[in-house]
Parts: sequence; structure tokens; C-alpha cells
Amino acid sequence: MKFSSTLLENAVNAFSKLPGVGRKSALRMVLHLLKDQTQKSEKIIQGLLDVNEKLKTCKICYNYSDDDVCMICSDEHRLKNVLCVVESIRDVMAIEDTQQFSGRYHILGGVISPLDGVGPDDLNIDTLIQRVRHDNIEEIIMAVSPSIEGETTTFYISKKLKPLEVKISLIARGVSFGGDLEYADELTLGRSIVSRTPYLQS
Amino acid sequence: MKFSSTLLENAVNAFSKLPGVGRKSALRMVLHLLKDQTQKSEKIIQGLLDVNEKLKTCKICYNYSDDDVCMICSDEHRLKNVLCVVESIRDVMAIEDTQQFSGRYHILGGVISPLDGVGPDDLNIDTLIQRVRHDNIEEIIMAVSPSIEGETTTFYISKKLKPLEVKISLIARGVSFGGDLEYADELTLGRSIVSRTPYLQS
Repeated sequence: MKFSSTLLENAVNAFSKLPGVGRKSALRMVLHLLKDQTQKSEKIIQGLLDVNEKLKTCKICYNYSDDDVCMICSDEHRLKNVLCVVESIRDVMAIEDTQQFSGRYHILGGVISPLDGVGPDDLNIDTLIQRVRHDNIEEIIMAVSPSIEGETTTFYISKKLKPLEVKISLIARGVSFGGDLEYADELTLGRSIVSRTPYLQS
Repeated sequence: MKFSSTLLENAVNAFSKLPGVGRKSALRMVLHLLKDQTQKSEKIIQGLLDVNEKLKTCKICYNYSDDDVCMICSDEHRLKNVLCVVESIRDVMAIEDTQQFSGRYHILGGVISPLDGVGPDDLNIDTLIQRVRHDNIEEIIMAVSPSIEGETTTFYISKKLKPLEVKISLIARGVSFGGDLEYADELTLGRSIVSRTPYLQS
């Protein structure tokens, strides 16, 4: 792609480093921002400056937050004794969108993955144990990825928590709603049969 | 989508205004920039500040430029007497990428489109006439969109240029390379037959 301006080229290069954005999309974005009269460009700059400088990590659950403690952890209406353990902030947002969980969260920051050099010490596991020990937690819901790494992480955490006698549950795995049964993978389909639930007859 | 931080939400909202970017992609971008240690975020901010403040429009062809005259217009190796007339800077880049044109450009800034409220006076047509009149231009290649609006614009410009007796040509329209003939639209296929070119036998 040939540019008539190095300034333009620099801006396009910067945008093309975003996930899922190629050079052509990046050019489209920058030209769109250049033509625009509604300060979209200023809003992006201000938004990035703000998150870079002011965004904090909640000291309880490790969610991104405006203050030291995030909105969820400081919400008195939420259950205090149920923790949902997830990998990332995106998982928190996905679960919040379902409106099916009214407890609090603990963000691990990933899963144990020796191949990627991620061990238990790289994750927020110690603080999870501390929370269970001191905050009167009754149930831990493990909502990590249904992968080898996720299972390993769940296993590791369950061993660490054993002395504390807290109830540990896993989110249900099974076939998706709207999915065609024949296209479900063997492992999921097999597990959905093993973990079948009783049909409630009316 | 529920956010635990208004700062994060503002940044995501700003990114979701980019063309082709929804809320989920915007969140992915912002989280990616937050996690990143390689100053991608700073590069985007700097890139946008630079293009907003320093980017100029070439006073000859209306291309984006670092200086008053763009790299193409100031390149002495390019033909001075052939002008390619296009709608936008993206068209210039697309044609430059083909490496098949060594003349100079004139960017109209759009096409005549009464429905969108774009008349001849909103486009860089007067300056095109001036260039043809004063710069010893021998040929104008019209490379605007093959649409009603594009044809109208070509017709309007050709009428304006008639007294100056400059040669006007159109880029060829026809079936695309690699395209399946049966999927080409009627108009294109019909025109490709009418405008057939002699096969050069070896």
C-alpha cells in the first residue's frame, strides 16, 4: 500500500496493530476519523488517555475499575458468600449480561498453562484462597474455559481449597441452545449424556 | 454490555464509532491495548494527534500530504501531462498499488449526486479545469465509480473540458479477472461484449 503522506502511514500502521484489523481496515478507520466533524478522533484519544492513566484494578476481584474497589464488589445488594471464578474481565461481562448471577467475582487473569509459561504463581490464586479463608465464602463457582488448561486450573484450585471445606461447583457443560446435535463435538455430547439432568414433569 | 468502569466504557464507546467496529470488537481492542506493553496505545494517540494537527491537503491534487505539495505531484519522474481523475484518496492508493500508471492525479472528493446534495460546486472540478487549461495537460483518464453518479460526473466534466480539446479516456469496464462469467451482472457483461478488444494472435 503506497502512502502519499508518512503521517497518514504512521496512523494507519498504529491502527493496524489492533486485533482483527488489517491495513485496509486501518486505512478506512483513519480516513473516516479524518473526514469526521464530530470529534470521534478526540474521543478515542481521550478514552485511551483516560484508561491508560486513570483505570484501576479492583483490589478485591481484579476487575477493571474507576476506584480502588469495583462497582460489583462494592454493591451491597449482591451476595457476599458466592464467588464466581473466571479467567478475564470479558468473562465477567458475559456472565453479567446473562443476569443469572448475583454473587461476586474473582478474576484469575488466565489459566495454568505450562506450555505458555503460565504457572499458578502468575495467576490471582493466592488472593482467592485468602478471600475464601477470611470473607466467609460458602460457594465457589468455577467458570473457566472447558479446556485442558481450564480443567487443570480447576483441579489445582480445588486441591488448594480442600482444607477450607468450601463448596465448589462447575458451570454446566453440554450442548448449546439452538445447536444441532449432530454437529456437537464428541466430548461435549458424551459429557452432556453423563451429566444428564432429570426432566421436571408438570 | 455491562461495564465495571465508566472509563473503560467511554473508551469502548469511542472505538465502537469506527467503521465496521461493533461493541464487542471495540471492547476487544481496548482490552488488547490495556494489556499491551509495547506502547501501541501511545502510537495510536500520537498517530491521531499528528494526522489531526499536521496532515495537509496537497494544493495541486487534493491528496493527503505531509507538505503543501504531495509526493506524487512533486515527483519529477512522473508524467506531467496525464491526469487520472478519481473520487478519493483511497482510489489513488489502489491505482498506485497496480504500478500501471505513471502520471499524476486529481481528486474530486466525490461524485455529483443530487440525491445526497452533492453538486458540481462541492467537488474539485473548477481546479481540474484550471489545471487542464494552464498545465499543458494532454490526457484526462476518468477513473470514477462505474455508477449513475460516476457517469454523470464524467459527462459533466467532459462538457466543461470540451472547449479545451483535451483527450478524455475512461478506464476499461468489463468482467473481472478470476470472476465466473455466469455471476457477472448483465450490464457489465453486456458492456464487455460491446467494448470487446481484438485478440492479438502471435
